[in-house]
Amino acid sequence: MSDTAAPETAETYEQFLDHVTRMTNVQNAAGILNWDQQVMMPDAGTPARSQQTAALSTVHHEMLTSDDLADYLEELEATDLGPEQQAVVREVRREHERATRVPGDLVEEISETTSNALPTWKQAKENDDFEAFAPTLEKVVELKREYAAHIDPDRDPYEVLFEDYEPYLGLDTAERVLERLRDELVPLIDEISDSDAELASPFEGTYDEGTQEELVRDALDTLGYDWDRGRLDTAPHPFSMGTQFDARVTTRFKPGDPLDALGSTIHEFGHATYTLGLPQDQYGTPLGQSRDLSVHESQSRLWENHVGRSRPFWDLFASHVDDHLGVDAAPQEFYEAANRIYPDNRIRVEADELTYHLHIILRFEIERDLVSGDLDVAEVPQVWNDKMEEYLGVRPDTDAEGCLQDIHWTHGNFGYFPTYSLGSVLAAQLFAAAEDDLDDLAGDVRAGEFDGLHAWLTENVHSHGCRYTTDDLIREATGESFTADYFLDYATEKFGDLYDL
Amino acid sequence: MSDTAAPETAETYEQFLDHVTRMTNVQNAAGILNWDQQVMMPDAGTPARSQQTAALSTVHHEMLTSDDLADYLEELEATDLGPEQQAVVREVRREHERATRVPGDLVEEISETTSNALPTWKQAKENDDFEAFAPTLEKVVELKREYAAHIDPDRDPYEVLFEDYEPYLGLDTAERVLERLRDELVPLIDEISDSDAELASPFEGTYDEGTQEELVRDALDTLGYDWDRGRLDTAPHPFSMGTQFDARVTTRFKPGDPLDALGSTIHEFGHATYTLGLPQDQYGTPLGQSRDLSVHESQSRLWENHVGRSRPFWDLFASHVDDHLGVDAAPQEFYEAANRIYPDNRIRVEADELTYHLHIILRFEIERDLVSGDLDVAEVPQVWNDKMEEYLGVRPDTDAEGCLQDIHWTHGNFGYFPTYSLGSVLAAQLFAAAEDDLDDLAGDVRAGEFDGLHAWLTENVHSHGCRYTTDDLIREATGESFTADYFLDYATEKFGDLYDL
Repeated sequence: MSDTAAPETAETYEQFLDHVTRMTNVQNAAGILNWDQQVMMPDAGTPARSQQTAALSTVHHEMLTSDDLADYLEELEATDLGPEQQAVVREVRREHERATRVPGDLVEEISETTSNALPTWKQAKENDDFEAFAPTLEKVVELKREYAAHIDPDRDPYEVLFEDYEPYLGLDTAERVLERLRDELVPLIDEISDSDAELASPFEGTYDEGTQEELVRDALDTLGYDWDRGRLDTAPHPFSMGTQFDARVTTRFKPGDPLDALGSTIHEFGHATYTLGLPQDQYGTPLGQSRDLSVHESQSRLWENHVGRSRPFWDLFASHVDDHLGVDAAPQEFYEAANRIYPDNRIRVEADELTYHLHIILRFEIERDLVSGDLDVAEVPQVWNDKMEEYLGVRPDTDAEGCLQDIHWTHGNFGYFPTYSLGSVLAAQLFAAAEDDLDDLAGDVRAGEFDGLHAWLTENVHSHGCRYTTDDLIREATGESFTADYFLDYATEKFGDLYDL
Repeated sequence: MSDTAAPETAETYEQFLDHVTRMTNVQNAAGILNWDQQVMMPDAGTPARSQQTAALSTVHHEMLTSDDLADYLEELEATDLGPEQQAVVREVRREHERATRVPGDLVEEISETTSNALPTWKQAKENDDFEAFAPTLEKVVELKREYAAHIDPDRDPYEVLFEDYEPYLGLDTAERVLERLRDELVPLIDEISDSDAELASPFEGTYDEGTQEELVRDALDTLGYDWDRGRLDTAPHPFSMGTQFDARVTTRFKPGDPLDALGSTIHEFGHATYTLGLPQDQYGTPLGQSRDLSVHESQSRLWENHVGRSRPFWDLFASHVDDHLGVDAAPQEFYEAANRIYPDNRIRVEADELTYHLHIILRFEIERDLVSGDLDVAEVPQVWNDKMEEYLGVRPDTDAEGCLQDIHWTHGNFGYFPTYSLGSVLAAQLFAAAEDDLDDLAGDVRAGEFDGLHAWLTENVHSHGCRYTTDDLIREATGESFTADYFLDYATEKFGDLYDL
């Protein structure tokens, strides 16, 4: 608040902040319930847990759309606020608008339809029967288009949906970045496919869960996870959850592939580190909350790829793997194993650092055209397979491993996928900026010194919470607008070198 | 609802039930947060967790005191409802009244005062300095008296407070039972003190946590814990938490005393079993919620004392202890070890099955007189020590191990303590009724057949939820009003036998 703000403004702002903080706390409580459900809860607990989660979601929605909040916002927007207060009001206004514009009935219908879509999709995938899923997908697309029209009838509905996940980057920017990625990665992956380079694979046989857990705990120690404010558990789909006071990591173990657990763990560590770097004294307000999905993903991918898949990291960590798993290999061998590219892989969730983006881009292009109406649901399998062939040179044999592979469209989360790629691209840009600012980041990683990188990320990204919009945050941190340059340079150099291109 | 209920009544009842169910779900969500805090959360998470818990509590309070709910209640009370609906309305009305009558400011002041009382009490206990704690205790008593006056200015404030924990048993009944307990247990314990009987102590040395955990998991298997709807973890103060879909048990391990973990686990198992026996199709309504503290405690004590401390149980379980801990002793030896009486023990939480009640009664008498104004805070240490001497024949050397020993008064939970004893007394009455109804309960226990007892408890206690008031529930289950007869018979016979009285 500016120094001259009237006392009644100060009081309104306090009441507003109380309301906002309570809302955040209800949402964070739901986060704990979700963590518990995925990590601790016996399966039979589901019926009660679904009701508990729904109740918190209803309560949160009521608080977000309440007349009180509308009044606070209106009053505060008419007064002279300082920049931090303005940011808080901006963020809450945005959420409030989205929530109030969409009728409750529609929200409920979307929720019901997507819940019911889940078993239909499962069955269709099992029977490799896209037609059985098509009417459901059509319905979901239609409902989400309706949803977007309520928020803004005058804009491209996909753009509106995208902004649910990434409000401040602009779909045009996202498209430009993704197109460049596609145009440059397809030939790079082609070259890799044609390369005769043989990358090392030092892992043989299987490794039990206990041993793998020791390894990933060691990795978390090494990278500087704050155990006093977190914990590690297992979950079928690894995720991270929490607040700046308690940000937890989950992982999973595949007997034959310890790099999977290591990569997942470091990825979730990156997410948790962002959360732990948010200012504690702003807990509950947007200034104490993380920016949107792309920025969050930039933090996980930075640690996963730019640290965990780097040669300096393996100089440091090779001996740890030997200690825990008894795999005595050179750093270069682990480095190669962690960076192997599989262009013939059809499954997104198992994709490597490069082909991953083409899985995302393919799905992005299809969902964008579905929502805009340029593509019919019936055409999806054909388009999917054509694009797989065009981008990755492989054609799925079935729709089950083609357009039915992922659960995501059943949730109706159109606009969510691109943030995965955008986050990776941003990771490269941020890491390059950190390299510029720090004396010898590669040397630090090799020496297991991560304090400098943590401090840089906290200062330039985490500590701001939602104070800046995403584009401002990127410019403040790196001196430039969002760009794919750094990611493409990084990818070309690293994989050019590994595959003798 | 009666068959002739008007459609608008049916609709109001549905809306009312929606509201009530949502309220329960918010409360149950808070239960998960509490479980997580005690079992999983890193300590540094406390500041955020406190805010999350407070937010849910505020939301719950707003829903409970809302005008909507008041309107539903009024409308439904004026219509012709069936007995189950009447019970639901009765329970919600009761909670609604209590919540609306007490001003929010007072609730907040109590919450703040008791929060701040905690460190004051800790410090006072550490320094054995009752005078440092006295002003705080005075303040807490005063605030709780004020609280009671808001609920009902015309009744004994202690009675009003007692009904927060036990609304349907009547303080006069409770007092009668507790007085009889005191009058008969004091001479019985005296006799035990004078007895020359030497009870066996088959445990020597220490047992590691892993081994003890195997033992208590075996006990839960043996007694029929439904692992599909629960889990076992450790917590500093064992408790149980959950719903009919997911009721969890916690325990703790003391290296030298495996019977402590066993007893705690069976106790919490009893609580969880009650919760798991509540009807699933009534989840979220009072018909799917447990009756009050005494009834809950009757379930934990029934399993802990009447099963777990019985000779038939040890006929069954002695070999299990040998299997896990390598303690090869006769059933009678374990039975004796589990039933040892320590009249010279000054600490309630370590008390045995008999002296336990005198610790409770002593505190009950003091807190009742404090609240009524018949006793000054300054007199508490003297009265405490006198009563200890009178009831147990020991006089604490310090206030730290006397009236400052327990945390509970700092919480202001006056009226809570007696439910511990009342629950134990009720356990005996229920167990006797089950013995009457079942062919050979002792034989079943010896054979590890617990299905009959589970079915009896579910049918007579659990499945009713809050349909009956406590006295009706007891009469329905046992054919009699609440009475201390069974407990005293049981205690006299069992300990008479063990101590050759």
